[in-house]
Amino acid sequence: MKIKTIMCNSSKEFFEKHSKIRESLATQEVELLVTNIEKGPVSLETLFDEALAGPYILKEVILAEEQGCDAVVLDCAADPVLGAARQVSNLPVVSAGEASHHIALMLSDNFSIITTLDESISMFRENVSKYGYASKVKSIRAINLKVLDLEDEEKTLEALYKEALATIEEDGTECIVLGCTGMLLVRDRLQEKLGIPVVEPLTMGILLAADLVRAGLKQSMLSYKKPSEHSQKLLKNL
Amino acid sequence: MKIKTIMCNSSKEFFEKHSKIRESLATQEVELLVTNIEKGPVSLETLFDEALAGPYILKEVILAEEQGCDAVVLDCAADPVLGAARQVSNLPVVSAGEASHHIALMLSDNFSIITTLDESISMFRENVSKYGYASKVKSIRAINLKVLDLEDEEKTLEALYKEALATIEEDGTECIVLGCTGMLLVRDRLQEKLGIPVVEPLTMGILLAADLVRAGLKQSMLSYKKPSEHSQKLLKNL
Amino acid sequence: MKIKTIMCNSSKEFFEKHSKIRESLATQEVELLVTNIEKGPVSLETLFDEALAGPYILKEVILAEEQGCDAVVLDCAADPVLGAARQVSNLPVVSAGEASHHIALMLSDNFSIITTLDESISMFRENVSKYGYASKVKSIRAINLKVLDLEDEEKTLEALYKEALATIEEDGTECIVLGCTGMLLVRDRLQEKLGIPVVEPLTMGILLAADLVRAGLKQSMLSYKKPSEHSQKLLKNL
Amino acid sequence: MKIKTIMCNSSKEFFEKHSKIRESLATQEVELLVTNIEKGPVSLETLFDEALAGPYILKEVILAEEQGCDAVVLDCAADPVLGAARQVSNLPVVSAGEASHHIALMLSDNFSIITTLDESISMFRENVSKYGYASKVKSIRAINLKVLDLEDEEKTLEALYKEALATIEEDGTECIVLGCTGMLLVRDRLQEKLGIPVVEPLTMGILLAADLVRAGLKQSMLSYKKPSEHSQKLLKNL
Amino acid sequence: MKIKTIMCNSSKEFFEKHSKIRESLATQEVELLVTNIEKGPVSLETLFDEALAGPYILKEVILAEEQGCDAVVLDCAADPVLGAARQVSNLPVVSAGEASHHIALMLSDNFSIITTLDESISMFRENVSKYGYASKVKSIRAINLKVLDLEDEEKTLEALYKEALATIEEDGTECIVLGCTGMLLVRDRLQEKLGIPVVEPLTMGILLAADLVRAGLKQSMLSYKKPSEHSQKLLKNL
Amino acid sequence: MKIKTIMCNSSKEFFEKHSKIRESLATQEVELLVTNIEKGPVSLETLFDEALAGPYILKEVILAEEQGCDAVVLDCAADPVLGAARQVSNLPVVSAGEASHHIALMLSDNFSIITTLDESISMFRENVSKYGYASKVKSIRAINLKVLDLEDEEKTLEALYKEALATIEEDGTECIVLGCTGMLLVRDRLQEKLGIPVVEPLTMGILLAADLVRAGLKQSMLSYKKPSEHSQKLLKNL
Repeated sequence: MKIKTIMCNSSKEFFEKHSKIRESLATQEVELLVTNIEKGPVSLETLFDEALAGPYILKEVILAEEQGCDAVVLDCAADPVLGAARQVSNLPVVSAGEASHHIALMLSDNFSIITTLDESISMFRENVSKYGYASKVKSIRAINLKVLDLEDEEKTLEALYKEALATIEEDGTECIVLGCTGMLLVRDRLQEKLGIPVVEPLTMGILLAADLVRAGLKQSMLSYKKPSEHSQKLLKNL
Repeated sequence: MKIKTIMCNSSKEFFEKHSKIRESLATQEVELLVTNIEKGPVSLETLFDEALAGPYILKEVILAEEQGCDAVVLDCAADPVLGAARQVSNLPVVSAGEASHHIALMLSDNFSIITTLDESISMFRENVSKYGYASKVKSIRAINLKVLDLEDEEKTLEALYKEALATIEEDGTECIVLGCTGMLLVRDRLQEKLGIPVVEPLTMGILLAADLVRAGLKQSMLSYKKPSEHSQKLLKNL
Repeated sequence: MKIKTIMCNSSKEFFEKHSKIRESLATQEVELLVTNIEKGPVSLETLFDEALAGPYILKEVILAEEQGCDAVVLDCAADPVLGAARQVSNLPVVSAGEASHHIALMLSDNFSIITTLDESISMFRENVSKYGYASKVKSIRAINLKVLDLEDEEKTLEALYKEALATIEEDGTECIVLGCTGMLLVRDRLQEKLGIPVVEPLTMGILLAADLVRAGLKQSMLSYKKPSEHSQKLLKNL
Repeated sequence: MKIKTIMCNSSKEFFEKHSKIRESLATQEVELLVTNIEKGPVSLETLFDEALAGPYILKEVILAEEQGCDAVVLDCAADPVLGAARQVSNLPVVSAGEASHHIALMLSDNFSIITTLDESISMFRENVSKYGYASKVKSIRAINLKVLDLEDEEKTLEALYKEALATIEEDGTECIVLGCTGMLLVRDRLQEKLGIPVVEPLTMGILLAADLVRAGLKQSMLSYKKPSEHSQKLLKNL
Repeated sequence: MKIKTIMCNSSKEFFEKHSKIRESLATQEVELLVTNIEKGPVSLETLFDEALAGPYILKEVILAEEQGCDAVVLDCAADPVLGAARQVSNLPVVSAGEASHHIALMLSDNFSIITTLDESISMFRENVSKYGYASKVKSIRAINLKVLDLEDEEKTLEALYKEALATIEEDGTECIVLGCTGMLLVRDRLQEKLGIPVVEPLTMGILLAADLVRAGLKQSMLSYKKPSEHSQKLLKNL
Repeated sequence: MKIKTIMCNSSKEFFEKHSKIRESLATQEVELLVTNIEKGPVSLETLFDEALAGPYILKEVILAEEQGCDAVVLDCAADPVLGAARQVSNLPVVSAGEASHHIALMLSDNFSIITTLDESISMFRENVSKYGYASKVKSIRAINLKVLDLEDEEKTLEALYKEALATIEEDGTECIVLGCTGMLLVRDRLQEKLGIPVVEPLTMGILLAADLVRAGLKQSMLSYKKPSEHSQKLLKNL
């Protein structure tokens, strides 16, 4: 099967580095079409960025079908325009952030999200309220490194480790969810140092998207109703 | 004071008819700058429409400051990109839908929203979950008239009355919130027929925006943190 | 229009000082009838005080109609006997505390209430549970100054500032609601020092009451059903 | 031990009939001091009635100590001024309604309250929200017989049975709580007809009050803080 | 009446010491049949222990009827297999833990549970979520003494006192519930030292079971439906 | 990788038929060790059955490690003794029911569970309360066919279809979760008839268990703490 992942920012540097990492997540069974958005913010860090990136993300979502894909994964821990993507696509649409939360809830009584910047926290807060499990989220914290600064793996690992220890001790967290898909490379080491599960969103997003394809499932058309033809046309001319 | 209202669709016909209605909401104290968005969907009826309209709404939000406005009101019951608007603006930002919910909660133990189309319901469902009072919302129902078909006032009134009676009887609703700012003209008659409060979103949005200006209040910069300079620039070139 | 405000204590000193402050909230459009209760506790600081003041508050609520008022505002952050007042009155009834909470929820993701005394906290706790948004209230704290000691503005400001900083840092609060209408005079300075919104209840109560009058709204008769004739008569002979 | 029950209305007829019923609840171990309030509404059916009865209820609560009682029971399913009563008394204070809810929650996954009049429903709604288990209450319904009309046992039983069947079938209720202590005499027959538990509030209030005395427990002074001396004095001169 | 209490562990030492303590809870009215389980864990400290003890607990529950008992009390603060016990028994079944929580909620706005070991905490967490009042539980803490080490009363009292003070100060708790029925003997002294209510589960379990018998109540057969004949037979041959 | 599935009943007929079905879920990557429990109830339909099956389920869970398995799946939609299984195992433990709920929540705003018998409903009700998303579950319904009667596929399909239509129309459900792993064979046809997602628990349990193995994840040792050595030994001698 073929799964399309959509990085929800337009940074070329990010794409170059991270597309290689993503390709390593492909398997014999699961081919990946790794993409990003052509325009919009160079990193998605606020609700404002989400609004600017939204149309370009949806454009990629719609394209997936004619690209012969079987499922779509939003490659962003903040799940931008996820509901709209599910409305407009005939393919199963999974988002990295939401997928990681559900996995965390099967591993632990509760979890904390550790993201990049303080100004990103409100996106996650809105999401867990919408999804209905805010009471299971012990905290949403930031390491205050910009997405594009996550290149320095040692620094990222150190910052995540410090914040994870703090949330375990101060907030009673029992599982960590990474709040940015740019943190993928440090997951293994962070989990080893902490001794509790560290859930990486993109990994889970791709795995769950493949599961939906295998199981013949996609989003409910009662929950995610089709948008009007007029609006769908608009997007094509973006 | 001067308040800018932003209709969150690009329909010229809608603007022509409804800008006159909105102007009648101005008072000696409150001058209104009635606007709509220049591009994007001709009506905002789904999460998908919200994503497409988002950047154009935010552009108008940002413009308000140099237009000498004191506050901004999103003229849409679905509160599109409200969080992003609050992040980027230095003015108090109120949205019609959210304002109407809070007023309803001061008039009644609970309320129902009656909107235009079935495919619009998920927007309201997401909102009331995010806002934290989903348990106070008895139902979200649709009359299945398109926004642009609300022109026929008698038909609109009849459809709203029928659906309102049903939600009072079947769902135990004690207050009605109109789920589209295009229903403004029928509020008075609907309330009279029903005998319970009918809250019209735009009216409440403008009144509450004026209140915030009078009281020297605007959104908390801890809840709504500024987006990056880079992203703000992007919007200017939209 | 004419709005009646009812201070929910019988202290003459409090009335003398604060009636002048309240009169400054009148505008060309909004005439105020500033009153207090004739008997009952000299300050309303506990559920017990609320029970003692209740009949006298309701007596003033009922009188408002023959005094030619268009709306009633309970001038107390603890919203004493608010439900009963709405049941018995034909006018829209707003209470200062509840009004301030709803405004706070439009300015911020969450809020904290700072009131006068530790023994007052349970009143607010009961209220936010009844109103359905307890999960949005980060804390309810007290400065441990009696209502009648709020005369010393500098001391009040200092105590509020200290407690507000503590709740921002320790509880993660993003907006402050004043928990006593006797703190009105220090709001502007407190907000300036804190840099986040500080919501003053009486101001918001009067503004929202005026909004209801303008919009032709009052409480739902399905939520607030009329009490028996027998009981209404009792009150007249109090 | 000696337990004081306080009927929360001033009706002499009600007192005469029901004081005999209450006396039958005394045991060798538990002596009852059956009282009512001297003034106030002749039946407590709305939040408004509760506010009028409040001071007289509290007066009886305070008197209990010098009457040599070991505990106080509010003999009303609507728990009027319960928090205030707990603040002011040095004895354990139990209320019939709250006691019956907790017993119901140990007998069943959920329950419904069936009370006298439609206008009484909002009192119960406020209570279960305050107490924190609103999601366990399937419905609050009324048989629309006035408290003083409950004299006709057959009519009362029939009306309760009809409403109980409806709430079982339509709302999925699995346990019935009687919403008025004037329905005591029909409990046994109603339970027999329905085959599911029917919880009578006053019975449970007296039993639980006796339990608290046996176990050396009373309300927490951290939750229910003492009111001021000034206010306590006021009550004495009522 | 005759009430059967079932210690939910198979330790002979525990039984010998504690059966004497339990017998002191009998009264002229309430005869106690004090039992434990014949096999299974020597102390019930984890969900795993609960699963192992389950069949033996249920065996004792079923036996109660032919032993001429009127009610059954699970003598364990963790309420093991409580739902199953209620399904299979024709007698009212009360569990110590659940009973203590409901009493705590009538004494205070909230409570904390202090149990023996860290690994026991998840049992209580599951319970209060199932019961629907997790938001009223400020914390669940452990003193890290094994059940069988509670013999040393001074050490137990000291450890409980330290943890109770911590939860009052750090978590804002206003009432303490003991999280193990082996702590019964220190309750009085702990309450005296703390000045807030300390609720002992077994005491409350027996008192409430007796109340149900007096009031003619038992669990709802709609909530707790009978298990199959086949499964009931299995238990007999355990 | 090798995944062990544990049917949570001891019926030989069920095992014979269903082990073949399960083997068809194996893939080149995922080897399945399909087992059932050696003793205990022949079908798991109530909380009582769960308690009886519990020790035998845990015995199989523990055996998995020495059988060279990489993960364990509880093959039961009711998730019996799931917490205990996670405590005692060093392997990731997934349960069919819980897995299906989380997948449903990524496909839809809400879901309904359709299980076999009315007496099974309380198991699911307890679970979704424990897991924290009860408000997302529109209904839990039963088709009133015993597990062992699901052999008749046409009858099962028809009964499920009828109940699914009813819950869509009456309860507003937007996704169906099958409430018994014995319904696996009819999923595809049911989904096709309904046009909304039908989630089959065992399929999802196996897929998610494989995902955890791939991602290097297992349950948090802070949420699921190891039981005592003494209790673990007990199980070996069962």
